[in-house]
Amino acid sequence: MADWSQEILGGNPRALARAATAIENRQASAESLLKELFPHTGRATVLGITGSPGAGKSTLVDRLIHELRREGKQVGVIAVDPTSPYTGGAILGDRIRMLSHHADSGVFIRSMATRGWLGGLAAATTDMTVLLDAAGKDVVLVETVGVGQDEVEIAKLADATMVVLVPGMGDDVQAIKAGIMEIADVFVINKSDQPGADRLEREIKAIQSLSTRKDGWVPPVVRSVATEGQGIAEALSAVRSFLARGDGKDRAVANWNQRLHEMLRERMLERFTDLNFQAAAEDVAARRKDPYTIIDGWLERISH
Amino acid sequence: MADWSQEILGGNPRALARAATAIENRQASAESLLKELFPHTGRATVLGITGSPGAGKSTLVDRLIHELRREGKQVGVIAVDPTSPYTGGAILGDRIRMLSHHADSGVFIRSMATRGWLGGLAAATTDMTVLLDAAGKDVVLVETVGVGQDEVEIAKLADATMVVLVPGMGDDVQAIKAGIMEIADVFVINKSDQPGADRLEREIKAIQSLSTRKDGWVPPVVRSVATEGQGIAEALSAVRSFLARGDGKDRAVANWNQRLHEMLRERMLERFTDLNFQAAAEDVAARRKDPYTIIDGWLERISH
Repeated sequence: MADWSQEILGGNPRALARAATAIENRQASAESLLKELFPHTGRATVLGITGSPGAGKSTLVDRLIHELRREGKQVGVIAVDPTSPYTGGAILGDRIRMLSHHADSGVFIRSMATRGWLGGLAAATTDMTVLLDAAGKDVVLVETVGVGQDEVEIAKLADATMVVLVPGMGDDVQAIKAGIMEIADVFVINKSDQPGADRLEREIKAIQSLSTRKDGWVPPVVRSVATEGQGIAEALSAVRSFLARGDGKDRAVANWNQRLHEMLRERMLERFTDLNFQAAAEDVAARRKDPYTIIDGWLERISH
Repeated sequence: MADWSQEILGGNPRALARAATAIENRQASAESLLKELFPHTGRATVLGITGSPGAGKSTLVDRLIHELRREGKQVGVIAVDPTSPYTGGAILGDRIRMLSHHADSGVFIRSMATRGWLGGLAAATTDMTVLLDAAGKDVVLVETVGVGQDEVEIAKLADATMVVLVPGMGDDVQAIKAGIMEIADVFVINKSDQPGADRLEREIKAIQSLSTRKDGWVPPVVRSVATEGQGIAEALSAVRSFLARGDGKDRAVANWNQRLHEMLRERMLERFTDLNFQAAAEDVAARRKDPYTIIDGWLERISH
């Protein structure tokens, strides 16, 4: 274990890959490892990137990696994918593009599928971020499809969050409906060469004018055409202006507060796998017992 | 309490509204009430309706209500909305259309906002379904914005699930990306007078051809133009064909299995509100303690 963590702290990519797999499979070894690594973390900047499907997030992430590598930064990427039982796993299309960094040892990319009903994705993303931070990554990009509560929350648990929108999607409910307006520290209008970019920017600004953030920050709106590499440096620069404001410590505490909730939730659920849900479900479906009384009984068992 | 539950069983709309509020606010009285009501449930058909934002779900639901009312059915609607802190609550736009049923005592509509980090929306939806079932609703429509894991799971916990799609949204990743393909018992292509309906139907069928459901059901594809009232009867008829197959009992057991997981998770979290997350988050952010050791300690406290 001590050897393993030393290798990770030294940036050994094979030790890192093995640890990422241990985290994803929830191996017991992962937790001891993370305990050892944790004191060596706190250096990496975590950047959340979220937006509607089809907004071009993967291409944008690809360009951000190139830009950060040009600056000599070590980069980690955690791509959170919704799982589709139909296709038998995470949607891989977007990931394939990232293979362009395959041969670059300064880049570590991990795609994580959602875990279905019991959740735990936020806890796993936290573990993965701790790992990449300890392994010396300067920047960790956490990419999520920002369409659901879970994904949005994960993107939010970053030092800065970038929300990617595209012009001309219906009545632009894309952002507002999914509740991602309020988590953006920086807006990126990608595919901004398409019609409707002006309108979208006006709409973002109209919504922003309705209320003021507690921290006083007004998230800038950056335009990009990621496929052409346009607007990438500007987006990074906007993120850095946000980070330079100096209340990062408050945000880190707030983020850890949320992460601890997720971690506790996940670990409690793991602990109670011996409960017989199937037999209880049969009793409830047949109206032999009511679900509320069953849950009461389980909570008693858990607490004593 | 006994009076209250009698009034609900008798269909008193004011008692029903008060109970819905008690459930939403997680008042202690709600749980005793639900225990009393539960033995009187099991008669209502629960129909989940989900789909991308902008797919016209609310209009479709509105038309379904009209159709069911024409048949003399009592109808309950639970509309699950993502919350936007920006607007200070659930997005109300869609709901306003439903006001057309305001004066009809045979229709009970409740909009529920998501509850943020701690989740609990599936548990609350279950409670609300139990309530409406006990109050004599023949059909309970559960409408969700099917873009995130949570919302998709809620729609799935129904006797039948309708997935609403629209033609011409980008590269039709709308359905596939969000993982809603596999939960549909019936597909509705709404706004089917718009270009791309044929292509979308071909795509749905292509994906269906890739694998077979365990129960052998091939979800039919119905076309609708909800604003014109077209395809509504056909959609209902497709749902009824699905329900007529007779393995509803297996599905009910599977659904209760999932619901019990959600209910346990929610109630465990409520029980442990005395943990000092803020102080722990400060310790972690300052790297004075590691989060894994903190969680271990909390689990010890909870278990003893």
